[in-house]
Amino acid sequence: MKNPGFRLSEIVARLGGEVLGDPATEVFQVATLEKAVRGNIGFLANAKYRKQLAASRASAVIVGATDAALTELPRIVAANPYAYFARLSALLNPLPSMAPGIHPTTVIGEGAEIAPDAHIGAQVCIGAGARIGAGSVVMAGCVIGERSVIGAQGLLYPNVTVYHDCVIACRVILHSGVVIGADGFGIAMEEGRWLKIPQIGRVLIGDDVEIGANTTVDRGALDDTVIEDGVKLDNQIQVAHNVRIGAHTAIAGCVGIAGSATIGRYCRIGGSAGILGHLQIADRVEIAAFTLIGKSITEAGSYAGIYPFSRNDAWRNNAVHLRHLDQLVRRVGALEKEIESLKGEKP
Amino acid sequence: MKNPGFRLSEIVARLGGEVLGDPATEVFQVATLEKAVRGNIGFLANAKYRKQLAASRASAVIVGATDAALTELPRIVAANPYAYFARLSALLNPLPSMAPGIHPTTVIGEGAEIAPDAHIGAQVCIGAGARIGAGSVVMAGCVIGERSVIGAQGLLYPNVTVYHDCVIACRVILHSGVVIGADGFGIAMEEGRWLKIPQIGRVLIGDDVEIGANTTVDRGALDDTVIEDGVKLDNQIQVAHNVRIGAHTAIAGCVGIAGSATIGRYCRIGGSAGILGHLQIADRVEIAAFTLIGKSITEAGSYAGIYPFSRNDAWRNNAVHLRHLDQLVRRVGALEKEIESLKGEKP
Amino acid sequence: MKNPGFRLSEIVARLGGEVLGDPATEVFQVATLEKAVRGNIGFLANAKYRKQLAASRASAVIVGATDAALTELPRIVAANPYAYFARLSALLNPLPSMAPGIHPTTVIGEGAEIAPDAHIGAQVCIGAGARIGAGSVVMAGCVIGERSVIGAQGLLYPNVTVYHDCVIACRVILHSGVVIGADGFGIAMEEGRWLKIPQIGRVLIGDDVEIGANTTVDRGALDDTVIEDGVKLDNQIQVAHNVRIGAHTAIAGCVGIAGSATIGRYCRIGGSAGILGHLQIADRVEIAAFTLIGKSITEAGSYAGIYPFSRNDAWRNNAVHLRHLDQLVRRVGALEKEIESLKGEKP
Repeated sequence: MKNPGFRLSEIVARLGGEVLGDPATEVFQVATLEKAVRGNIGFLANAKYRKQLAASRASAVIVGATDAALTELPRIVAANPYAYFARLSALLNPLPSMAPGIHPTTVIGEGAEIAPDAHIGAQVCIGAGARIGAGSVVMAGCVIGERSVIGAQGLLYPNVTVYHDCVIACRVILHSGVVIGADGFGIAMEEGRWLKIPQIGRVLIGDDVEIGANTTVDRGALDDTVIEDGVKLDNQIQVAHNVRIGAHTAIAGCVGIAGSATIGRYCRIGGSAGILGHLQIADRVEIAAFTLIGKSITEAGSYAGIYPFSRNDAWRNNAVHLRHLDQLVRRVGALEKEIESLKGEKP
Repeated sequence: MKNPGFRLSEIVARLGGEVLGDPATEVFQVATLEKAVRGNIGFLANAKYRKQLAASRASAVIVGATDAALTELPRIVAANPYAYFARLSALLNPLPSMAPGIHPTTVIGEGAEIAPDAHIGAQVCIGAGARIGAGSVVMAGCVIGERSVIGAQGLLYPNVTVYHDCVIACRVILHSGVVIGADGFGIAMEEGRWLKIPQIGRVLIGDDVEIGANTTVDRGALDDTVIEDGVKLDNQIQVAHNVRIGAHTAIAGCVGIAGSATIGRYCRIGGSAGILGHLQIADRVEIAAFTLIGKSITEAGSYAGIYPFSRNDAWRNNAVHLRHLDQLVRRVGALEKEIESLKGEKP
Repeated sequence: MKNPGFRLSEIVARLGGEVLGDPATEVFQVATLEKAVRGNIGFLANAKYRKQLAASRASAVIVGATDAALTELPRIVAANPYAYFARLSALLNPLPSMAPGIHPTTVIGEGAEIAPDAHIGAQVCIGAGARIGAGSVVMAGCVIGERSVIGAQGLLYPNVTVYHDCVIACRVILHSGVVIGADGFGIAMEEGRWLKIPQIGRVLIGDDVEIGANTTVDRGALDDTVIEDGVKLDNQIQVAHNVRIGAHTAIAGCVGIAGSATIGRYCRIGGSAGILGHLQIADRVEIAAFTLIGKSITEAGSYAGIYPFSRNDAWRNNAVHLRHLDQLVRRVGALEKEIESLKGEKP
């Protein structure tokens, strides 16, 4: 399947920016500068790839104003070349349109409402009273719980599960294996046995959220779990009950967020990081991969707590001292006193 | 849907405890002290929320004996307010009853036995010779392998997978995306290629176990993987082959437990912790979040091993020394000798 | 179900090795030396289990040449006893054969090609133009995207999802909950909102790969994500877009591999480890559990970076100093200068 081609002049007519070089240059696909072949348009969004510009076989490139003179290739000058590349790629690679309609194998509960232009794939189950919004696509094997709502233009890949009474707004993408609204981990000990605490809150997901494969978002214990507009979650993230994730925050894979944590807006959290329960994270906080946040963060900024790796034998020799670090600090304190004492004794 | 209301007098008649204030006070739902509105019953289970008691708009509260005099609100005095709250919430929020019967889209293998009062949802597959116990609910899209057993009163949310020959006892809850009985990770290197070691053990799960969304429990290599009674597992936990988890142990999300580890009873393991293979963990061990247990623990108690986070630049300045900690310790030892030597030289 | 028995003489005729003791000894199942009963064949693959040999009730054992004299039991002497055990276990425990055919509830898209001897289970969806190879088994609830290819002798357990346009070679095993080809985590910030970057690459999986339950492998952003021949992935691993994993590398559960990382051949990566994006890992690198690899590794060898655990109070006392380690190093440096100065002052 070859994509339809676009001339640079057509592209800027749709997406803005300015053409330098031949505006009739036709491009069919986006590519990195390094891998581009004839018919591709590359992009330079990071200064460290400047050296690839000269050698690139791309038919055209997207560059920022400061890099516009670095090449003779036909080029589009854009304020934000990476965002421009994203928009152009979406233009060149439109999602396949899914025909409206409900597959005959779908099972639909009483009172469920499905927009006439929605696409419901094979072997989907839609619970009683659920609603599927205009233009939404629900692929094969998805299960939507009773009274849950998927807003307009939703896109649920195969084998997504949404429990009952969850509310998902518009243009939300859920990848395969996502589970929305499972019970939070609420238990109370009584005489040597755990009692289950009913999880009666919901999950509310805002507009333009994307959630990666096998990520889980638990329903609230009493109040709701909330994912605000524009949040982007990668794969295999665990969002516990009553968490709130602020708008436009992006979280990489395998992160665990414990119950009732509140994360601000425009945060960026690295892979396999963790946030303990009931903490507050301010807006615009960056958390490094593999870092456990163990107390609230009140100021924007970058935070980390990663044990540096080394060769195994070196690690072993060094790490053993961590169990005696307090003692080492005391030894240094004692030495400082001794030195002071010796200096005082000097004639 | 409004829950049916209960008078405090009716509640203590069912659940025990003592009413102070008007026993005719009617409550419809549980809530936190902070969020409670009229018709709600709050609870005070943690001294740090005492200050919320005065301002709460709850119609009634659950308190312990020592806190009974802190409020004039109608109240139930209970020995264990948090457990009481759990029981009351279950009373006020009963699970919807699922009509007995087998959905016509279900596929059932030869010789499978399904209790007449079980509920089997749409597009479920039940393998040959499998058994589903009395009162169990198996929701849409679940797949139960050949000869596997689900005991009485089981609750399987949508899209759970149980492989063949697994045995799950009574009142077990499995959330969506759970995989029980996949092959353990058993491989043997031979002349540059990995050979697969057949995983011929089973998974045995005791009574009253709950397993969170997308958690995986592998079948044993030769013997069985065992989850004892009353164990509670949160989401996205990995339980490898031949692990044994002792009764009433609770494990938070994203924990990984490597092969043949044995965990005691009444342990509590924090999120994203890890336990290496073949280790033994005693009863009543608490393990902090993000902690890797690298050798067996023979005594009850709390254990941790977390790198403390800080601002990124501070972390970087400090962490760099971890690769030279052994050297630092030697330097301190040398200093101590020098000091001793200098002190010895004193006239 | 009792397995068919094999005489030791029959076994060596099929698998090689040499019999010592009665070649007519019949064995029905493999077992550990410790758990073996009559009719079982044990194996000694690790010197630390030698002491179990004397007490074992196994009817026969597999041993290496150097251990052949340690027992009087009927035995098979093999160059690699563990690999021999793996092969023998496969002989004694053949996978149940699945009858060729397509279950009537399967939904098959236009132009899909399914080998006549493939087994397609209930409620499977196979997208338009997809191909399922000879002898492959696709169990209940799997969804195969449009134009994706499963090679010969594939084995997909229930509820696997493969997105569109992925290519999976021969003898690949995918366990339940695996998601192949979901979108990578590609976003670009523009004026306070994230733009989605279309993920137009594929996932290519080589021969003899096995992927554990709930593991996710994202499709490439522009180029492909590649898992080479013989790679073994445990459960709940996250493989981000454009990662390449070299042939015969084995990765334990819960590992996260960030985008565009390249991992060599014959690497072994421990559980819950992480690899940051765009890094290169050489061949034959071993990475310890719970270790974050934050820069490229150019030499074979073993690497680690694990915070050692201890009792909680000891951990707390020690860990607090990590936030002041740089200061401690400076204090030691100052002491060294002081000592030098004091020594210089000596008369």
